[in-house]
Amino acid sequence: MQRILSTQLPARVGGTVRIAGWVHRRRLLKSVAFLIVRDAAGLAQVVVTDAAVRAAVAALPEETVVEVVGTVVANPTAPAGVELTAPTVRPLGPPAVPPPFDLYRPALTATLPTQLDHAPVALRHPTRAAALRVSAAAVAGFRAALDARDFVEIHTPKVVASSTESGANVFALDWFGRPAYLAQSPQFYKQLMVGVFERVYEVGPVFRAEPHDTVRHLAQYISLDVELGFVADHRDVMVVLRDSLAGMLDEVRSRADTALATLGVEVPELPAEIPAVHFTEALRIAGAPADEPDLTPAHERALGQWARAEHGSEFLFVTGYPMAKRPFYTHPDPARPAYSNGFDLLFRGVELVTGGQRLHRYDDYVAALAARGEPLEPYAGYVDAFRHGIPPHGGFAIGLERFVARLIGAANVREVTAFPRDLHRLTP
Amino acid sequence: MQRILSTQLPARVGGTVRIAGWVHRRRLLKSVAFLIVRDAAGLAQVVVTDAAVRAAVAALPEETVVEVVGTVVANPTAPAGVELTAPTVRPLGPPAVPPPFDLYRPALTATLPTQLDHAPVALRHPTRAAALRVSAAAVAGFRAALDARDFVEIHTPKVVASSTESGANVFALDWFGRPAYLAQSPQFYKQLMVGVFERVYEVGPVFRAEPHDTVRHLAQYISLDVELGFVADHRDVMVVLRDSLAGMLDEVRSRADTALATLGVEVPELPAEIPAVHFTEALRIAGAPADEPDLTPAHERALGQWARAEHGSEFLFVTGYPMAKRPFYTHPDPARPAYSNGFDLLFRGVELVTGGQRLHRYDDYVAALAARGEPLEPYAGYVDAFRHGIPPHGGFAIGLERFVARLIGAANVREVTAFPRDLHRLTP
Repeated sequence: MQRILSTQLPARVGGTVRIAGWVHRRRLLKSVAFLIVRDAAGLAQVVVTDAAVRAAVAALPEETVVEVVGTVVANPTAPAGVELTAPTVRPLGPPAVPPPFDLYRPALTATLPTQLDHAPVALRHPTRAAALRVSAAAVAGFRAALDARDFVEIHTPKVVASSTESGANVFALDWFGRPAYLAQSPQFYKQLMVGVFERVYEVGPVFRAEPHDTVRHLAQYISLDVELGFVADHRDVMVVLRDSLAGMLDEVRSRADTALATLGVEVPELPAEIPAVHFTEALRIAGAPADEPDLTPAHERALGQWARAEHGSEFLFVTGYPMAKRPFYTHPDPARPAYSNGFDLLFRGVELVTGGQRLHRYDDYVAALAARGEPLEPYAGYVDAFRHGIPPHGGFAIGLERFVARLIGAANVREVTAFPRDLHRLTP
Repeated sequence: MQRILSTQLPARVGGTVRIAGWVHRRRLLKSVAFLIVRDAAGLAQVVVTDAAVRAAVAALPEETVVEVVGTVVANPTAPAGVELTAPTVRPLGPPAVPPPFDLYRPALTATLPTQLDHAPVALRHPTRAAALRVSAAAVAGFRAALDARDFVEIHTPKVVASSTESGANVFALDWFGRPAYLAQSPQFYKQLMVGVFERVYEVGPVFRAEPHDTVRHLAQYISLDVELGFVADHRDVMVVLRDSLAGMLDEVRSRADTALATLGVEVPELPAEIPAVHFTEALRIAGAPADEPDLTPAHERALGQWARAEHGSEFLFVTGYPMAKRPFYTHPDPARPAYSNGFDLLFRGVELVTGGQRLHRYDDYVAALAARGEPLEPYAGYVDAFRHGIPPHGGFAIGLERFVARLIGAANVREVTAFPRDLHRLTP
């Protein structure tokens, strides 16, 4: 008999079926025992009255893998309105050691460190699993939106010869006797690949040896990187970012609908055109002095409130950040060169994505590095490529874990990461 | 005027259009000059008769980024039957430094090391770009096939605390003062995630510090990993592998059709059921002694010929490899415990994919490690998870670069990798 999933039971009332999964919970009452089986799709209730079967179930601790054959009976009080009766229950492995927390409670009560120490079982909790399903759907939507717009997926090296992008905070390793570093971003490679495909994206791990022990820093995270050529300026990039986000939110809504229900989360509406304010205007809205070089978290929160009040939007672009606060490869605003063609996207008053137009002329790179007092040599292989014709281009990067955490309201990015890596954590 | 791509020109005959791209080639004849512009979609021929425009074109070296506005005229002898006449030509950047090889020739004549040294420009050659498009399509097809079968995409750590899977050939790094290693595969993590989602896949980089300087070894490559639970045995895994490959080949056929034409490659037919022979039978077919512990490349070639002759198939499963030659987590064949429930998939007589059923009981892991004289301790975090209920499961991994190289007939995996990493190469 073919195994069916718990969600298929309502369509099989009256039939005899085989399900399989984990012992999620047992309730051994006087006259009857209930066995809740959890599979990839959800929960199924099994009603046990036979004494021998009851004894077998009593000997199967939570998380034991079992197979149940029984008759599907409608019961409005059971999960999904059906239950399995007259079952045979067969373990598919030895009795499990129950995890150090109850997976059947609505919320995991163990502390986050305990959950992370026991990730292989903690992730089985429906809320933890749901967050990862949202994550998978978001990435699928990202790719679908870009595939539909003729972007080509690329894979770039995660080990590089020089620690270029931000200098510090890199992991060093020994590469066949040579010093090497884990890549902090695919920034340079995706720019070079604009010279090949015009429009590229990459979904992959990036590594930051940041000694910060915060709720939003991971030493490895998944970066959703986009870069596109033949742009007029950063606004062409903002359109692609908006469409990528739309794809992500749409796919979360459709593919992860059950996960969203488990988490009690609604996906926000994304405006067809996200409101945008220039940095100087943003300072004014936030009530900040006009000579502030950057936005503080408090300013961003004020901007989030303003966007909601003025535009009914959870999202807000801030454009034209001062050049002094952006990476050296940022393209200046030709009309106001102290300001950049760089932008941030705020979601509910917190920065979600950073992007912008990049320099595309070799001489501009040389000048930009010189102006910052940075040597050209570590960047030579990257900068040299701009001698060979790279069109005006720009792009952005979305940190997957931060995106998902903010979308579902998780306080800590570690809640939406299967096996986080940070200052303290290298296992499991 | 909105920019259009070269492939859109045939539909715009008679109109005035704007295209943009790279100076692919110039031919300055006596009475006329031809400018070939390359964009992401292909090539466009621009006919220049005006003296001033001709002088401008003469000053624009190959790979300069340009924008051309002109009138679309039908010309059966031009690429795609159309050309642009009466053009204005405007550079979108400074004159390019031409690369050290001609990108306009049908094949790149530079040696592979020279191509790799100049990857940002070499990859612009239509054949190199086509290989990467085939790669992107293959990955998209892999994901689509698995998404359709309720697999969940996961992301696992690329830095791990112990060098477990094969012991040697790991890259060591310093993780905030602690020793750590680049992950050689997501093997353990994907198995643990079977406990969460039943069916998972991952597309991500893996790292092998193999001191081999061969045409098929890379120190970083993309592994397409699959693992699924509630299997009866390895044959359930082989069905999913077959369907994943079908998805990959279908997507290459449909999405990368132009790339296939550029490469002159036809996608092989995949049988609905791939023929399978047991290892002992494979030895007999290959004319090898019955006590051989493994198949040599010559044996595999003989098997490839046999599969083509007997089954008309380019693909052949070999099942039941001796346990002694498979990793410790391999599930034995219950009926013949010296043989495994592991398989290889041969493509045209070369191993393409390895997979199998895994052990799923804690005690079996302890025994398997002891039997191999391996200590339990480095594996403890992994093996312990099997105390908590992991169903019978199995999976496989496809090396993306090897798959693409074999599909398109590339002699060296470096030809299908944008920026390869190996014993000697850490840049660009």
